[in-house]
Amino acid sequence: MKSKTLRIIPLGGLGEVGKNMTVYEYDDKILIVDAGMMFPDNDMIGIDYIIPDFEYVKQRANKVVGVVVTHGHEDHTGAIGHLLESVDAPVYATPLTLGLIQAKLNRRGFNKKSRLVTVHAGESVQIGPFKVDFFHVCHSVPDGVGLGIETPAGLVVHTGDYKFDHTPVDNWPTDYAKLAEFARKGVLALLADSTNAERPGWTPSERVIDAALDKVFQQAKGRIIVATFASLISRMQQVVDVAARYNRKVAFVGLSLTENIRIAQELGYIKLDEKMIVSQDVALTMPESKVVLLVTGSQGEPTSILGRLANGTNRRFEIKAGDTVVLSSHPIPGNEELVYHAINSLMEQGAEVIYEAIAPVHVSGHASQEEMKLLLHLTRPRYLIPVHGELRMLKQHRRLGLDVGMDEKQIAMVENGRVIEFTHGEMKLGERIPGGYVFVDGTGVGDVDASTMREREEIGQDGIVLLNMEVDRKTGSLKDFEIISRGFMTPEESESLFTEMRRRAKKMIDHNAGNMQGEIKKLAQSMIFEETKRKPMVFTTITRN
Amino acid sequence: MKSKTLRIIPLGGLGEVGKNMTVYEYDDKILIVDAGMMFPDNDMIGIDYIIPDFEYVKQRANKVVGVVVTHGHEDHTGAIGHLLESVDAPVYATPLTLGLIQAKLNRRGFNKKSRLVTVHAGESVQIGPFKVDFFHVCHSVPDGVGLGIETPAGLVVHTGDYKFDHTPVDNWPTDYAKLAEFARKGVLALLADSTNAERPGWTPSERVIDAALDKVFQQAKGRIIVATFASLISRMQQVVDVAARYNRKVAFVGLSLTENIRIAQELGYIKLDEKMIVSQDVALTMPESKVVLLVTGSQGEPTSILGRLANGTNRRFEIKAGDTVVLSSHPIPGNEELVYHAINSLMEQGAEVIYEAIAPVHVSGHASQEEMKLLLHLTRPRYLIPVHGELRMLKQHRRLGLDVGMDEKQIAMVENGRVIEFTHGEMKLGERIPGGYVFVDGTGVGDVDASTMREREEIGQDGIVLLNMEVDRKTGSLKDFEIISRGFMTPEESESLFTEMRRRAKKMIDHNAGNMQGEIKKLAQSMIFEETKRKPMVFTTITRN
Repeated sequence: MKSKTLRIIPLGGLGEVGKNMTVYEYDDKILIVDAGMMFPDNDMIGIDYIIPDFEYVKQRANKVVGVVVTHGHEDHTGAIGHLLESVDAPVYATPLTLGLIQAKLNRRGFNKKSRLVTVHAGESVQIGPFKVDFFHVCHSVPDGVGLGIETPAGLVVHTGDYKFDHTPVDNWPTDYAKLAEFARKGVLALLADSTNAERPGWTPSERVIDAALDKVFQQAKGRIIVATFASLISRMQQVVDVAARYNRKVAFVGLSLTENIRIAQELGYIKLDEKMIVSQDVALTMPESKVVLLVTGSQGEPTSILGRLANGTNRRFEIKAGDTVVLSSHPIPGNEELVYHAINSLMEQGAEVIYEAIAPVHVSGHASQEEMKLLLHLTRPRYLIPVHGELRMLKQHRRLGLDVGMDEKQIAMVENGRVIEFTHGEMKLGERIPGGYVFVDGTGVGDVDASTMREREEIGQDGIVLLNMEVDRKTGSLKDFEIISRGFMTPEESESLFTEMRRRAKKMIDHNAGNMQGEIKKLAQSMIFEETKRKPMVFTTITRN
Repeated sequence: MKSKTLRIIPLGGLGEVGKNMTVYEYDDKILIVDAGMMFPDNDMIGIDYIIPDFEYVKQRANKVVGVVVTHGHEDHTGAIGHLLESVDAPVYATPLTLGLIQAKLNRRGFNKKSRLVTVHAGESVQIGPFKVDFFHVCHSVPDGVGLGIETPAGLVVHTGDYKFDHTPVDNWPTDYAKLAEFARKGVLALLADSTNAERPGWTPSERVIDAALDKVFQQAKGRIIVATFASLISRMQQVVDVAARYNRKVAFVGLSLTENIRIAQELGYIKLDEKMIVSQDVALTMPESKVVLLVTGSQGEPTSILGRLANGTNRRFEIKAGDTVVLSSHPIPGNEELVYHAINSLMEQGAEVIYEAIAPVHVSGHASQEEMKLLLHLTRPRYLIPVHGELRMLKQHRRLGLDVGMDEKQIAMVENGRVIEFTHGEMKLGERIPGGYVFVDGTGVGDVDASTMREREEIGQDGIVLLNMEVDRKTGSLKDFEIISRGFMTPEESESLFTEMRRRAKKMIDHNAGNMQGEIKKLAQSMIFEETKRKPMVFTTITRN
């Protein structure tokens, strides 16, 4: 068989390469791996979330033979609903991943259930020209898989998010045997997770959390409130198990968390003794030493249960002295301030707060440097393409490749949209397709762009001042001068400035018949700048009647 | 002598207790320790910086006998200029600290040089009823001191920012002997730095940076650009020393950095061989392997040299392939995104970037847990008041106190503005004075408050829409309808919405003689929300002529 060209294009990712979506192209067919969402940076004001730019696959929608999803996290699944609006292709995923996707698609009114195809780790499926081997990987959500993607051009191993946990909570380690089998067949290229490439050593096993939780439960006298990611099913299993040991009932609080638990339970990914579980209402009437509340909001998000508890705006219950709050999570970069504010505020309300810095109540779901080297030795790829990371992490991943003996030419550092081509076993970097990402704000997809964002920043910076003037058509004198400001300064402080502005504007207008709109605006801007060194946006209207 | 009451009030600090200012009161006299500035959180839009609320000392200005400053960092000195505008008292500090303060005061036009009093570590000065012992501490700026503050009510040890470095760059360790001497006299209370209370072990010595820098210089082929805090004089000494070993000349770039170097050099706190130093202009013409550029901007601030190099907006020179950039700093919480963006962007431009995660090119200037315990053993205070930290850190500091055998009653957890009273050697928590902090924006101090900030956030969130309508007075029909939007959505996307809005507004107005301003606003808001699920601020004017 003639070896045609395999093209791989990492897409999505806000500064992270190939984090949220990757396109595989062979023989004029397209396989999409993952379609996730990103969360906005602090300076992306008012944006709900961000999705990859689908333009490239939209234009080739009829060539897409399938969408394969590695695991059930939002940054790998959150844009599937948007994608399916322009690409009608079957979605392949393991039972839990598919369950989580389906719940989200249902909320969007998607009803083509027939397009959702269940696969199991260990299986292999032919999707167009792509033979996809699904192999189990450990991560912070159960049922994650990596992919062996085989075409006549060669075998590519795509890890997705992974770690090598020898003692995972579900006793299901990463599939070493399959990785070794790939090596035996010969791996053309490895696309591997770089998230923790800056972290030396080996990521601790999820199992270490048991001991930390046990200590918390042993010492807590009052209620225990545990906040974690809604998708961290194994963490919830751990909390339920330790609660059983200490004779506490568990209540799940929060919509996403409750729904995820229901799905995981139906599919057998979490084992709950029904006698252990109580509703939030029941939990709140029980003796405090007998309950655990599992809640969302481990990132301190103001709208989450934990965020509302921190801000004192939760309706159903409040923090009280004697509560123990466990943040079983790590702040996502950019969220540090929010998380620390929440911790301080919970403490102020009298809670004992246990978090990563003071007890090992969280571990990362991503491989560290020694695991990344192990992966390289297990798979022995001809080429390494570090993905899932910012440039600084990809560079460290590259260094690890060199450390284990790879050659510089064997490692490709790419950016999103860069086409990586494999022909006759040789890698070549091709053109860069326009890509990037698209803002989602409210129901709008892509109607807010970087220039809108700059305007939002600008009006937010020093506020706005509106000057509405009415001039008497006959006498030419200023009849009315309304000044409205928002976000400029306190009314008490602006009063004298605005009074003087009215006085000087009146003088200017009363003696002039022309259209004074531009002059008045300039006058206002210069008076404001002189007085405050600020530049609020100024808008003026002048009407004559 | 009758033992009167000593009152201590921690002030300033954005979520951090007593970080920027502390008030000591005895016998109706007031001693102020430090007056620093804070940097705004990410959600404090448009704010330049923040200063402590001086109201309490302003109202008692005639009672203030002195201002004592522990070291030359902005968060301890940055508000002195503001303070001296309402409090005319002498300022006591060590030579370098006073030099740095004076440079800043000169820029504000302050000219009462006679009010600035130089003291040296090891000296003791009677300031009103307060006998102040200045003792040397190691920190990330030279010439830092802690204070022994003695009144008839007892001796209080106030550490300021400190660490126990056995091998500091200037070979001047923290004054253990003085601390032991305090213990012998009997320490009533210890106010100690809690910044690193969550960090186990012992903070590494500044000396470890030498080896890391040496390795960088050994490997670098092109230019070396080192970014650090402008006040980190000892770090600059280290860079100059290693540059000498590798036969490179050093250029200092950036106003604050150059000025600090000048002051430190004049006062003998940095030793520079003049032959080693070149101007920026000369450096840029020299062979790349022969120069080091020391620049500001280790926090990725967009207006700093490093920030501009990252963004490609630096005028005098640009990053080129082969440059090695060293970030000798740690991101201040909340700055992580900014710093990582800068690192990635420098890498994209071809620079090798060395930062904390991949080499020990920075160490903290604050004591870690073992040092904090050592301090407790050295001083053996009757009471511990953890300061300089968020509540989460104070709590950890408290735990360390308990660990070394203190009793719960011996440790006071306080918030800013809380009065701590000592009478006959007993501690009591008193009232809380209104305090907090004041925003500085442009030249305005305190004219922007939390509600202004909320308005800025609100207008920034979804933007603004201005509707200016002109109605024909005679016919009652809409003559003109101007729609202006900022930060709402892209013009292409809003066009059809605005066209429909004009159509429906015209219909409403043409058939109605009343004042339709409120109705039109409601119409616009509901049309916008229905179409976009967004709530920009809408302003309307209607004029009839």
